Amino acid sequence: VSDDASRRFVLVGGNTATARIDGISAAGAAPEVMVHTPAADLEIVEYGRPVRAPVVPVSPTGCPTPAVVTRAVRELLGFGTLAVDAGLARPTDAPTVATGASTGVDVREAAAVPDAAAAFERARSLGRSLPDDALAVGETVPGGTTTALGVLAALGEQPSVSSSLPDNPLELKRRVVREGLAASDLAEGGAAGDPVAALRAVGDPVLAVVAGLTVGAAETETDVLLAGGTQLAAAAALARHAGVEAPLSLATTSFVAGDDSADVAGLTADLDVDLTVTDPGFERLSHPATDAYVAGEAKEGVGMGGALALADRAGVPMADVRDRLVTVYDRLVDEPPTP
Amino acid sequence: VSDDASRRFVLVGGNTATARIDGISAAGAAPEVMVHTPAADLEIVEYGRPVRAPVVPVSPTGCPTPAVVTRAVRELLGFGTLAVDAGLARPTDAPTVATGASTGVDVREAAAVPDAAAAFERARSLGRSLPDDALAVGETVPGGTTTALGVLAALGEQPSVSSSLPDNPLELKRRVVREGLAASDLAEGGAAGDPVAALRAVGDPVLAVVAGLTVGAAETETDVLLAGGTQLAAAAALARHAGVEAPLSLATTSFVAGDDSADVAGLTADLDVDLTVTDPGFERLSHPATDAYVAGEAKEGVGMGGALALADRAGVPMADVRDRLVTVYDRLVDEPPTP
Repeated sequence: VSDDASRRFVLVGGNTATARIDGISAAGAAPEVMVHTPAADLEIVEYGRPVRAPVVPVSPTGCPTPAVVTRAVRELLGFGTLAVDAGLARPTDAPTVATGASTGVDVREAAAVPDAAAAFERARSLGRSLPDDALAVGETVPGGTTTALGVLAALGEQPSVSSSLPDNPLELKRRVVREGLAASDLAEGGAAGDPVAALRAVGDPVLAVVAGLTVGAAETETDVLLAGGTQLAAAAALARHAGVEAPLSLATTSFVAGDDSADVAGLTADLDVDLTVTDPGFERLSHPATDAYVAGEAKEGVGMGGALALADRAGVPMADVRDRLVTVYDRLVDEPPTP
Repeated sequence: VSDDASRRFVLVGGNTATARIDGISAAGAAPEVMVHTPAADLEIVEYGRPVRAPVVPVSPTGCPTPAVVTRAVRELLGFGTLAVDAGLARPTDAPTVATGASTGVDVREAAAVPDAAAAFERARSLGRSLPDDALAVGETVPGGTTTALGVLAALGEQPSVSSSLPDNPLELKRRVVREGLAASDLAEGGAAGDPVAALRAVGDPVLAVVAGLTVGAAETETDVLLAGGTQLAAAAALARHAGVEAPLSLATTSFVAGDDSADVAGLTADLDVDLTVTDPGFERLSHPATDAYVAGEAKEGVGMGGALALADRAGVPMADVRDRLVTVYDRLVDEPPTP
């Protein structure tokens, strides 16, 4: 906690074709624009609005991307950031570190991340070499809870994940993961102790990079705060299966913690991961930037839970976070990108 | 000047094979490590030391890269940065915006920047879309004063440039440029009014991107401070030949301003560019971080002159800049990268 003043906020963005499966993700208004979501999210955190990406990511009902929350907290705390390209399918004008990772394949294919080993090792090397004493690590990858479920199943960990939809399509996700495991000739638990095998078979490139970063940072005694929900818990599982015994902590939102289908408390307890839950108090205002969260949409993503935890630990009242969130949102609506 | 508090510092890095011509550049201890200089410079400004790059750039006599000065000022002022990849020949772990530009070809070939048009337009688009009201723009490209000389000659502007060497090898540069113009079937002044033709024939990809950024920023009334010496003056010339009539300003060091062979005052006057010269007072201490500058080496680069001007305008005493510079330098020496 003492390191927060200089903690660098790392955001790993990428795409997987898994997001194109009908009904899997709400991280975009429609499938043809959802592909831009990670690139736009990175630009929103860096610049306050999309710059090259042609859309402001919203869910089909108009819930704005949690990137808006992370940006709002960044404007209040002024933390340093680092965006990592883990298979972005669309160009971004956010500055990114390259990992060489390709966009992920549909998990129902034999190899969901054909270059998982290389992406994991590149990220591990980055995690080892960053000079920061403390990192927060978040993700933006539509379809990422399904691949997280796949990885948890492949490792033999508690197979439960959250959703960006109010009603978690868990049965659909489980069916997709079963197909993915079968296509990869892998049983549930068949990749225990082999994180790269789990990632390759049923993961996504963002998860490969987040896990590699976490392992590399742990090797150099860098404090890592996993900023997110069940996808980041899956990254913790991968790190544990890679042999990481260092303390790990995860900070997520009250929306994920309140999602019984996700059971993030059980998942983190199983993995010996310290859990922080922050409630931004969105029910205290009625505004298009927050109403859909109160109704159960989005819940988490783009480091939102970690950003809220950092704000809370720095003594910033959630009322200030909400005020700034409205400011950031209004700027986005007033100056939308030209598609 | 009033915009400095939110001015974003953009650093454009890349390579050109022109730097391999014997005796052209001192931006590296030896030719085989000089190729890493731009990648290392971007990492030093971002992280305070090289992270992936295997070297701390120094001249053959040990003069440290001016990236150390820009980093020192960044630590004092906390300005936001943006690194742009304009044909880096080696990978970097500094986050960068991609431009698609390739590493530059030796200017003595027919086309020094075969993709000059695309690089210029991509950078122009970036310059138009960045939300910042004010930018500072610097460069890191070994061999860049020779290509700047080439561009000035091709445009028909005053053909004088500075050097990272104490004795400017101007005759060598002029011969190289003459060969380059001949190989491109271009007379001196033959590309007047056609900046892309000048860049393509005898420029480098960094100059193409700096010029494109400047033009795009001017089109959206973004204030641009050209942070550097004669290479940035060449970028101003390219912008003028692209039709930019907006006020332009250039901030360089007293080392460049004191180099009669460069005549940066004459060059900027010709181009109607406002000139700021800042003297960091390096003669007031005796230290390996500064002694070689006093002896005439390096002089400028990686935005050094612009960073010094921003520090001065923010009321930071040069004594504080020197103190911080020594701190940054000592960190580099204590924790050198592992090649």
